Parts: sequence; C-alpha cells; structure tokens
Amino acid sequence: MSSVRSKTFVWWLLAQLCLAAVSYSQNKPASWTPQELTDLANIEKTALTSNYGYEQLSYLTDSIGPRLTGSPQHQAAVNYVAGEMRKLGLEVTLEKAIVPHWTRGNERGELVSYPGQSKNLSQKIVLTALGHSVATPADGLTAEVVVVNNLDELHALGRERVTGKIVLFNREYDKRVRDAGYSFEGYGDAVRYRAIAPIEAVKLGAVATLVRSVGSAEFRLPHTGLTMYDPHLSKIPAAAVTAEDADLLARLTKRGPVRMKLLLQTETLAPVTGYNVIADLKGSQFPDQYVIVSGHLDSWDLGTGAIDDGAGVAIAMQAVQTIQQLKLRPKRTIRFVAWVDEEGGISGALQYVKDYPAASHFATIESDTGAGHPIGFVTDSSPQALETMQPIAPILQNMGVIVSRTTEEAGADISPLSIGGVPGFAPLMDSRTYFDYHHTAADTLDKVNPTDLRENGALVGVLSYALATLSTPLPRVPKPIPDWMK
Amino acid sequence: MSSVRSKTFVWWLLAQLCLAAVSYSQNKPASWTPQELTDLANIEKTALTSNYGYEQLSYLTDSIGPRLTGSPQHQAAVNYVAGEMRKLGLEVTLEKAIVPHWTRGNERGELVSYPGQSKNLSQKIVLTALGHSVATPADGLTAEVVVVNNLDELHALGRERVTGKIVLFNREYDKRVRDAGYSFEGYGDAVRYRAIAPIEAVKLGAVATLVRSVGSAEFRLPHTGLTMYDPHLSKIPAAAVTAEDADLLARLTKRGPVRMKLLLQTETLAPVTGYNVIADLKGSQFPDQYVIVSGHLDSWDLGTGAIDDGAGVAIAMQAVQTIQQLKLRPKRTIRFVAWVDEEGGISGALQYVKDYPAASHFATIESDTGAGHPIGFVTDSSPQALETMQPIAPILQNMGVIVSRTTEEAGADISPLSIGGVPGFAPLMDSRTYFDYHHTAADTLDKVNPTDLRENGALVGVLSYALATLSTPLPRVPKPIPDWMK
Repeated sequence: MSSVRSKTFVWWLLAQLCLAAVSYSQNKPASWTPQELTDLANIEKTALTSNYGYEQLSYLTDSIGPRLTGSPQHQAAVNYVAGEMRKLGLEVTLEKAIVPHWTRGNERGELVSYPGQSKNLSQKIVLTALGHSVATPADGLTAEVVVVNNLDELHALGRERVTGKIVLFNREYDKRVRDAGYSFEGYGDAVRYRAIAPIEAVKLGAVATLVRSVGSAEFRLPHTGLTMYDPHLSKIPAAAVTAEDADLLARLTKRGPVRMKLLLQTETLAPVTGYNVIADLKGSQFPDQYVIVSGHLDSWDLGTGAIDDGAGVAIAMQAVQTIQQLKLRPKRTIRFVAWVDEEGGISGALQYVKDYPAASHFATIESDTGAGHPIGFVTDSSPQALETMQPIAPILQNMGVIVSRTTEEAGADISPLSIGGVPGFAPLMDSRTYFDYHHTAADTLDKVNPTDLRENGALVGVLSYALATLSTPLPRVPKPIPDWMK
Repeated sequence: MSSVRSKTFVWWLLAQLCLAAVSYSQNKPASWTPQELTDLANIEKTALTSNYGYEQLSYLTDSIGPRLTGSPQHQAAVNYVAGEMRKLGLEVTLEKAIVPHWTRGNERGELVSYPGQSKNLSQKIVLTALGHSVATPADGLTAEVVVVNNLDELHALGRERVTGKIVLFNREYDKRVRDAGYSFEGYGDAVRYRAIAPIEAVKLGAVATLVRSVGSAEFRLPHTGLTMYDPHLSKIPAAAVTAEDADLLARLTKRGPVRMKLLLQTETLAPVTGYNVIADLKGSQFPDQYVIVSGHLDSWDLGTGAIDDGAGVAIAMQAVQTIQQLKLRPKRTIRFVAWVDEEGGISGALQYVKDYPAASHFATIESDTGAGHPIGFVTDSSPQALETMQPIAPILQNMGVIVSRTTEEAGADISPLSIGGVPGFAPLMDSRTYFDYHHTAADTLDKVNPTDLRENGALVGVLSYALATLSTPLPRVPKPIPDWMK
C-alpha cells in the first residue's frame, strides 16, 4: 500500500510541475517583438543567398594562406579583416596582446636500426613537430623508441626502461565514436596525450616524445597541435607521427629494438605583439552591453586554416555583414572579434578579459568547429538560456537547425568570459569529417561547402541579433576557473 | 509477312545455336578429374587460413620499405623473395634486365606572385616529381602557370600564350565513376595526361608541366607515376600537384597571373642491372609448359608499396606456398615471377619475352590491383577461356568469387606474353579505395586487410593450379602490339 500511495504522490508532483512550467511559459514576457522576429527571418534569408562569407574565406586561405600566431601571414590577415570591417562601417579596434612566436623549420624522422633491416637501408617516418615543441640538437637525436598506449603502460615500463628513449604515445582516435556522431568526444579522449606527452615522458627520463596523430583519416598525414611543458621540468622535443607510422613503430618494436633519428628544427622566438581584431556594430539602447560574435584568425601552418578556423571568422563576418546590409540596429552592441592565438594558448582571449570586464558582456558566440551543415546550437550556460531562445526555433528550422543543447565549453576563446558568467553560444555542426583534416596540410578551402558555410553565417547572424535584441535577461552562471588558466 | 518470316528464321537460328552450344558442352572432355577438383578445394581452404602471404607483405613493406627500380631496397627485396622461394624448394633463377635508375631528391613548389598577394608572402604548393622527370635547374625555375582541363584547351591557348609557361593539366579523377565501381576506368581517363603532359606542353614551348594528381582521395597527397618524353623533343620537368593545389592554381589563375617557383632535384642515372625473380614448381607431365603466377616487386618511392604491388607479390607467394605445402604436383610448371620495373616501363617483362618464348607458356596470372576482396577473375583472352574454367566456379563461390569476364589487359607485365597469344588472367577485386592510396605516401601495410589478402592468395592458388592441370587447351588469341611497345 505504501508503495502505491508513494507512486500516486509522484504523479501528482509531476503534474504540478508541468502546470507550473506551462504557467511560467504563458506568463513570461515576450522575448522579441513581431517586427524583431521578422528581422531575424530576414537575416537568415539574406545570409543564405550571400557569397560574402565564402569570399572572405577564399581570400584568407587562397591569398594569405596559413596564419600561424606571430607570423607575417597572421599580421596580413589582421590588416585584411580590419579593413573589411571598416568597409562595412563598423568601429574597429586592434587590441594588442603579447603572443608566442614559434616557427617550425625542417623536420624529419628516420629509422636507423630495426628488426629485419637490410644492410644500409632505413625507413622514413612521416612526422611533424607539435606546436611550441623545442628543437632537437641541430643534427638531430637518435634513440630507441618505446611504444605505450596509455599512461599506465608508461608507468609500468618505469624509469629504467624509459630513460634515454623516445616515447611514442600510441592512443588511437576512435573512429567508431566519430561514426556515431561524437567527433569531439573522440578528439577529447585522444588529444590529452598530445598535451601531456612531453611532461609525462620526461618524468621518466625520456629524451623525446611522439604522439600518434589525433585524427580520424589515414592518409599518412601528420596532425599538429599544441603541446605543453612543465616549467619545473626539462623540455624535450615532441612530434606527431602519422597513424601509419605509429602502426609501423608499434609492429616493429614488438619484434625487437627500434632506433630512430629525429630532427626538429623548431624555433621559439621572443614573444611579439599580436592583435585581436574587434569591430563594433553599436547598440541603440545599451551600447555598453556586448554580444560577441567571433572566430579565431590564427591557424596552424601546415594547411591554409580553412576549417580551423578561417571558416569561423568568415561565419562571424557574414553575420555582421548581413545585419549591416539590412540596416538593422540591435539594442546591444554586436561586437565582432577575430581572436589571435587560439591554437597557441588563447593569449588573445586572456588579454581580452583583462581589457574588457565580463560584466559588460551579455552573451558570446564563437564558431570554431569548421563549417559542416549546422543542425543546431549549443550553450555553455543553462537550460533556461535555451528555453529563452525558443521563439526563434521556427526561424532556424527553415534551414534544418533543430537541435539546442547545453555543453561544457562553447568555444576556447569565449571560455574566459564564460567563467565570468557570460552565456556562451556556438553553432552545432555535422563534424564527422572535421578531424580528418584538422591541423593537417589538407585543411584547405575545398573542404568547405559554400552552402554549409552560408547556413552557419545565417545561424550566427540570427543568434547574434536575437541575443542583442532580447528583452529578457539570460541567467548568468559563473564557472570554476580551470587549473591551466590559473 | 516477310518481316514475320524473317523473325521466325532468327528464332530458329538462335535455337540451333543454343542446341549446338549445349551439345558442345556435353561432348567436350572433362577439364579436371574429381581428384584435381578436390585438390583445388584444398588449395582454397588452406590458403584461406594461412598467414604466409601477409607475413611476406609485412616484411617487404615494414622491413624493406619502398622498392624503386634500381634502388638498394629493390635489390634487398629481390634477395629476400629469392631466398623465400628457395626455402619452399622451388628452382630459383634471377633473370637479368637492364632497368632505369632514377632518383627523386628534394622537391618543392611555391607561388612567388599571385592575385591578392600580401607583400613578401608566398603560398606553398604541395607536389611530387613524376617518375623519370628531368630536374629543374639546381636553384629551381620560376614561370607563370597556365591551367587547362584538356588538350583542346591547351591548343586553344596556342604557342604564344604557352611559351615560357608552366602548364597544369587539371584533369580530375571522376569519383562518380569510382563510386559506381569503375575505379580503373576513371584512372584510365585521367592518367593519360600524366603520360603525355611533358610532350604536349613542350610542343607549344612550355618550360615545365604539372598534372593534377590522378587519385580519388583529397588529403593533399600528391600521386606520382610514370611520365613520358618524346626523344625528338626537349625534356621539361614534370610534377603532380595535389588535388587541393590544382584547385588553388585554377582559382588564382582565373583572377590574374600566377607565377610559381618549381624545384625538382631528380636524377636520371645510368641504367643498372635489375632482376626478375623466377621460381619454378616443376610440372610432372609438361615441365616445359609454363603457367606464370606473378606480381611486381618494384614500387614507387613515396609509400612502402603495399597495395602497389607488394600485395601482388605476396598473393603469388601465397599461391605457390600453398600448393607446395599440400605437396601437389601440377602437370605443367607453375612459374612464380616477381617482375622488376613495372612502374618504370615494364623493362623486366620485355626482357622476359626475349629470354623465354611465348610458345612455351600455357597461361599467365598477374595480380596488380591491390588486395581488395576478390569478387571474380578476368582474362584478356576469349569468352571460351572463361567457359573452360567454369567447373572451378563452385569452388571459388565459397569465398564470394562469382564474376568472370574478359578485359582488355589483365596485367602490364603479362601483356607482352598476351600479345603472343598466351591467355592472361587476374583477380577482379573491390578496388573502390585503390586510387585513394595508389602511388602516394599512404600506400602502406595498414591499407591491406589480411582476410582479403588471403582470399586473393586462395583465388590465385586455385586459378594457377587449375590452369597447370587443365586437360584441354585454351584458345590462343594473339593481340596487336601497342605503339609504345614497338
């Protein structure tokens, strides 16, 4: 009996909660006027037929090319984007930030001895230095390779069997996870070895470290990306080998000792001044409240930075260009930002929160997941924020944008503002092929479908104007500061 | 009425032909004894559970690596395969052939001026020298690039607009053709530009030529391969650019003049002695009648030559190893051949027909299409040859080998014997991904599925033993000598 009564109570409670929700939804103030909803529909419609974003991306990739932080190409891109924003009539600021200046130089891997080797023959190992890696000696270093699949296997080897060696972390990007639609979760799992490899390897006496490229395609392409050092430990050279070469090393080391020569002629130069490109479309009622719409202008140097993240910058440019073309005036200021140094440690974004208080920001958007067809949008804030945005759902549905959900982090550059409680948003895209090309030489313009890019421009245009005209506040949920940012 | 009578006559004629065919089929002698059919089924069963072929391929690719004709790696592979054949108890001959000796050296492409260029910036062009290309001057050559999609477009440009330029032949491998299952037809269409590019370009005064890589995947991988020169014309450097870089050049040249620096440090050295590895499993009744089972041991130098054509050699090795392991003695001699220099112009195969008359060959098999799941087999001979092989169809069906059809060419190395009337055979494989990797750095062991390799070993084992024990003759259909072979 008591069980039945208990169930009845639960049903009663659920019914009350539903009634309360309906009542809340009916009584809350309308977020947008009918005219504003018409304006939002026009933004979408206009952006969906515009080539503006794709032309910007073409210029950034075809004419400027890779935009490594601190490079002349990055500076050329800053000048170009600032010029384009001025042409649109926006108020442009170049925000200075001290950024790292690292260059790649020549790089090479070669097996010098291995099981089954014929006299005087060697095998090439295709690799690329990880971002910020120190160099090897000028004529390279030669050492035995040990292969581990995870940290436990490294620790099981112990100092004796690691000292003087090159450690390969052979963690595979799980394509089954990608195929199921969880590209970024697969990336998150494998990428931590890229970050910690030189720290964990040197603790046991390794002289260099390799990681299996974090990526989903196997075309003997090395995938670069940032690695980390512990300032209290010595810095050892770190490179990514291709999936094929990681497999080769794993097979050969099972048969016997493998010695490899590694040459990385990287240079870590003195930090230089870089710039966040900031361009404001002033708000009519609350010009000191900002809605950021952004991507990062820097890229790695192997490809031309089309999907990571020329596309994000082009999407943000398309969003503000469309609003400006329609002569719409948001209540709050829409602030376009092309961040510097996302790839090298978000020094641009960290400078930004020193120069501009989180309190003056209403919301942020960053697009940094390529330019696949958008299926929805995410927020790093609360379910209530998604609920507030519901009235724009029918507009977004027109182009197949139907999902809205919360996420841990909406974008690396906007995460410092999210920590301060500013709700962050991002498009949610079909990203199944993203990690095929990410951080490789194959990140080039042809990987971006112009229609998909337009859809993202339309989505970010609608989202940014909706946030900048919203009549109700969004809940602000401050987040804990992650260890690495302290 | 005359029309009806005519139709009646046609039906009568067709019926007579069918009856004749049935009568022929009933009266012809059995091709194999019941014991021989049991032996063939055992070959299949044994090969399908053997790791021998895959172990050979592992050694050729992991321990030896790329096996460019004339290189020490190719020589190491000759020694290795000859040794393995001797271990099996076969009678080994190393057949000398004078082969080309070409080396790649450094290679680089860079745009030096182009529309939209920022001061002092350039863009990298990813490329690789085509096989046998001459070098550029030691410090490279710089010239304007013109892009054509076909010969008509080149001729339309004319001498005035081609002289002194670099011509890019931008013929795309048609992935729709590949997706429909016709990988090799797509290849055949695009690859002719790789062959004729330097000849056609120099006729109009070009200083160098580029081709869009002939391949189906777009991971910024250049695909190398043989190119051709006309001895009566000057030789100009020739390279393959990646699909991405071909697209970039096509886009930029539409906007304005593009100048490119090309550096190829190839070397064409004096020809050297190479070897076909020949290993005979002597026939019991007709030891002087040969059934060749073969693949080519040379490969291009960018990858490790796993699918092209380490796999073919491993499949042939698996075939003879299985027959030997089962202590089967064919009526005719089964001759294993690992050809030299298929990639550089089949100089090994051309030497072979000088040393061994076509008349002493009963049939040939070459496997040079990778190691995808075999769906059937082809012959460059007659439909009658396929009809003769029908009794082995039930055996092959066990592993999904169900198609048999005629083809123009069964294999490059066996084509000189086919011209002499010797029926040539080859496995017919699922080759949808073959041209993703073919002639690139990504042609590595991981691209070969061990199960598929075993199936091909089983198929070639069955085919070769069936041909070597066949009690009826196969029709011999001499073919015309192609122009390039004269």
